[in-house]
Amino acid sequence: MHTTVLSLLTIIAEAVLKERLIAELMQAGATGYTVWDVEGDGSRRLRSGDAPGENIRLETITSFEVADKLLEKLAHNYFPHYAMIAYTSDVHVVRGDKYV
Amino acid sequence: MHTTVLSLLTIIAEAVLKERLIAELMQAGATGYTVWDVEGDGSRRLRSGDAPGENIRLETITSFEVADKLLEKLAHNYFPHYAMIAYTSDVHVVRGDKYV
Amino acid sequence: MHTTVLSLLTIIAEAVLKERLIAELMQAGATGYTVWDVEGDGSRRLRSGDAPGENIRLETITSFEVADKLLEKLAHNYFPHYAMIAYTSDVHVVRGDKYV
Repeated sequence: MHTTVLSLLTIIAEAVLKERLIAELMQAGATGYTVWDVEGDGSRRLRSGDAPGENIRLETITSFEVADKLLEKLAHNYFPHYAMIAYTSDVHVVRGDKYV
Repeated sequence: MHTTVLSLLTIIAEAVLKERLIAELMQAGATGYTVWDVEGDGSRRLRSGDAPGENIRLETITSFEVADKLLEKLAHNYFPHYAMIAYTSDVHVVRGDKYV
Repeated sequence: MHTTVLSLLTIIAEAVLKERLIAELMQAGATGYTVWDVEGDGSRRLRSGDAPGENIRLETITSFEVADKLLEKLAHNYFPHYAMIAYTSDVHVVRGDKYV
């Protein structure tokens, strides 16, 4: 099966940022996203003091270029102000042209 | 720790397809799956017009051969008719013999 | 964007083990985790006979060394007694120093 290697970007953040982060993804050139509620804790105090379920996990599949642009934006505009983690991994996608 | 490299196949689809997709996984040779509700949108209009939570994210760990067979089947039998995305990534699994 | 390659460890287990597994992660040197409820089945009888939602998916990003130590512990102390799967994958993380 022919697949295309693309970047899967994962963001874990406070649930209150959901709509704003989705808007960032789409503005940067992502063509879709998946999001669900998660619970967690971390050194960046993700959800410390919050009730379970108040975080989100937001994922998008994009070109490496768009993923990098999004990581830059998150690092500069969000990381200093919010409990948030972000990472990418490589995925093999069917119909890769739908994502770029 | 000894691990085996296997394929993690992820499918994001309309929730109504859940049982049918799980049956496809098992018929193709998968030995298990994990599934949960997600919310999302995409260029393939995944969930456009749906209420949040009506999509599923379905994952299975299989041999590369089974993952490829499943991608072929999804691309031919499901993609033309349903809002759906599918991708694979490599994972390092403990007790890899349980999955093949 | 500068990123660091780290290990994303995923554990899928009975929900009853949630607090105990989180404690294992933190004791081994993980600095955070994310967890959510999932449904599933597998050759190891993950959730056979359980109602949906009684499993958890627990993830942590750590050094390769900590991930390996955790896999060893899970394989020796948990796998013989519980329905559980565990695997790792490589991820590119922003601000990797927060995780080690």
